[in-house]
Amino acid sequence: MDKEHKRILAAYKKQGARIETSARSKLAGMKDFSLWYTPGVGAAATHLAAHPRDARLMSVKKNSVAVVSDGSAVLGLGNIGPYGALPVMEGKALIFKELAGIDAWPLVLDTQDTEEIIRIVKAVAPNFGGINLEDIAAPRCFEIERRLIEELDIPVMHDDQHGTAIVVLAGLMNAAKVVEKDVKKLAVVIVGAGAAGTATANLLSAYGIRDIVVTDRTGVIYEGRKGLTPKKAELAKRTNPRGIRGTLADALMGSDAVIGLSGGGKLRAADVRSMAKRALVFALANPVPEIMPEEAAAAGAAVIATGRSDFPNQLNNALVYPGIFRGVLDLGARSIDEKMKLRAAAALAGLVPRPTARKILPNLLDKRVVRAISRSVGK
Amino acid sequence: MDKEHKRILAAYKKQGARIETSARSKLAGMKDFSLWYTPGVGAAATHLAAHPRDARLMSVKKNSVAVVSDGSAVLGLGNIGPYGALPVMEGKALIFKELAGIDAWPLVLDTQDTEEIIRIVKAVAPNFGGINLEDIAAPRCFEIERRLIEELDIPVMHDDQHGTAIVVLAGLMNAAKVVEKDVKKLAVVIVGAGAAGTATANLLSAYGIRDIVVTDRTGVIYEGRKGLTPKKAELAKRTNPRGIRGTLADALMGSDAVIGLSGGGKLRAADVRSMAKRALVFALANPVPEIMPEEAAAAGAAVIATGRSDFPNQLNNALVYPGIFRGVLDLGARSIDEKMKLRAAAALAGLVPRPTARKILPNLLDKRVVRAISRSVGK
Repeated sequence: MDKEHKRILAAYKKQGARIETSARSKLAGMKDFSLWYTPGVGAAATHLAAHPRDARLMSVKKNSVAVVSDGSAVLGLGNIGPYGALPVMEGKALIFKELAGIDAWPLVLDTQDTEEIIRIVKAVAPNFGGINLEDIAAPRCFEIERRLIEELDIPVMHDDQHGTAIVVLAGLMNAAKVVEKDVKKLAVVIVGAGAAGTATANLLSAYGIRDIVVTDRTGVIYEGRKGLTPKKAELAKRTNPRGIRGTLADALMGSDAVIGLSGGGKLRAADVRSMAKRALVFALANPVPEIMPEEAAAAGAAVIATGRSDFPNQLNNALVYPGIFRGVLDLGARSIDEKMKLRAAAALAGLVPRPTARKILPNLLDKRVVRAISRSVGK
Repeated sequence: MDKEHKRILAAYKKQGARIETSARSKLAGMKDFSLWYTPGVGAAATHLAAHPRDARLMSVKKNSVAVVSDGSAVLGLGNIGPYGALPVMEGKALIFKELAGIDAWPLVLDTQDTEEIIRIVKAVAPNFGGINLEDIAAPRCFEIERRLIEELDIPVMHDDQHGTAIVVLAGLMNAAKVVEKDVKKLAVVIVGAGAAGTATANLLSAYGIRDIVVTDRTGVIYEGRKGLTPKKAELAKRTNPRGIRGTLADALMGSDAVIGLSGGGKLRAADVRSMAKRALVFALANPVPEIMPEEAAAAGAAVIATGRSDFPNQLNNALVYPGIFRGVLDLGARSIDEKMKLRAAAALAGLVPRPTARKILPNLLDKRVVRAISRSVGK
């Protein structure tokens, strides 16, 4: 365990919890207890039993989001279970509050059974105004999200998919400006065909980017490749219009942009050198990027982004999910659709009208981000 | 809908949520994001995956309690479902925070299946330092509590059972002083053989009160009565030493104390008049007591208590659960045992050394209550 790791653990142990609850109603005298507890709460209980929709007006459901994970794909760390997931979900709950004023609670689940996860989230849904799914492995995450969207009347979003897709699209829009290329004509390689890779391919495609190649452990995904899962077979149909085959290195040769959504260390300097001139390198795996920024720069990348807070150009979902959920909660929306996602990406990119190689998107401290995205959702 | 009911609903609608989350760590600069989010959180995640017990030291688990209900027995209102239960659980979460500094989150469940409730609570347990079960109907509540206590390594308490039992025992100890009777020699009638009635009979009995008679809708519970559920058959064995039979009215004749744990309006003035002199009447159903205090007084009761905040002598679980959970969280206890409950009752009663007819226990605003109970738990 290195020194930095020790320092971080010591800080977490000293800190204890990073979020807490607070009272919004005071209990200063017996009248308060009579109103907010018994007997007064009986009237609220009777009313909500008859009018469950009013829970959005007069309960914690009004402004809350559950941050749900089964710990099966935590950051780039893999399947480390609910306790491994807990600090990440708690960190997200902290960010939800600090950036968007949303009351989020972590819900890491001690099960990795698809049907059980669906049942649990449906069962706890009355308490929440939205569900943020997080760090759930593919392909399970697709089925879980699809079913919950269908079966619940509150917005459900798997952030690894859509938060990532939105921030990547926004980043590409502005990075393309920096290198003076047309974003829709970029040849894009996505490393990783999991939750994030699949959703990013879909959103870039919905935006109008045509030349997208997705790779997984085996190499390039193409129609007819043996042993593709159903999700990957779908992906093959919608991507790779030039029908290329081979390895990640083959795909990267001559490409304009690479989006790392896979795991630390997947990109070598030689891969970056083989790309087109003024290449865009988004190495977004956390906590260890696919290639370290200094290495990508040395290999000639023109714009480099990571998911981390300690390098320039942080393309992190945290730029997106607070604003998206703020938007749907304010709107009382039942779901988050593709148009909202495209508008959110445009709104985010629009906050940096003159992007540079070291600043393609606003940073997490920029108070305009949540407002811009939440407003774009409601348009 | 009467005027008072309208006034309360308007207050709840104006209020919205009664609890919210707050940040305990600040996100003021990018260094904070690096520590509390990515990349720093990766170190915490890796550590907790390997050392899950440390979640108690370095996550929201340290100080949090889930307030879980299936909405099947909400207050005295019956089976009104999860939305009906939500304001009550949220009210409890508010009280947990305001009285004991505990971060509680409501979890009303959209299922009333025993096995499913057990699975859900087990699955979400990693997020919490304790589980407060609430307003779950008997006999399901017994099985759910028993199994969760067995299968989880955090304290689990069904408050309708044990919170009620503790506050009733404390109330009886001091009310007996007021009427100068020996508490262990009281002839006690418990109205209601559900969660609260059963647990109260058990705790009074564990304390040493021998003459306890429990009644249900059919009347007095006695050994050999036809159609008893297994739980009631057990209860029959441990109570009713004089072997009486008949109706609630029969049981009350000549008794010293009646504990209403059933539903509004079950006690008539004539019942109270038939009791022994200097009778104790605890009419604890919420929001409507078994008999209104003024009626019980007119019928000659010497000490009268309700569960409500707007009459003297509020015997409400809220005197107990904040302190009990404060105690076990501070202690890192894995469970709440019978001795803790007896000590908690004694500690609570001990706060009013010279009880009077209008003040047998401290009220909810008394800051000493949580401290006294939480300390007693750790002894």
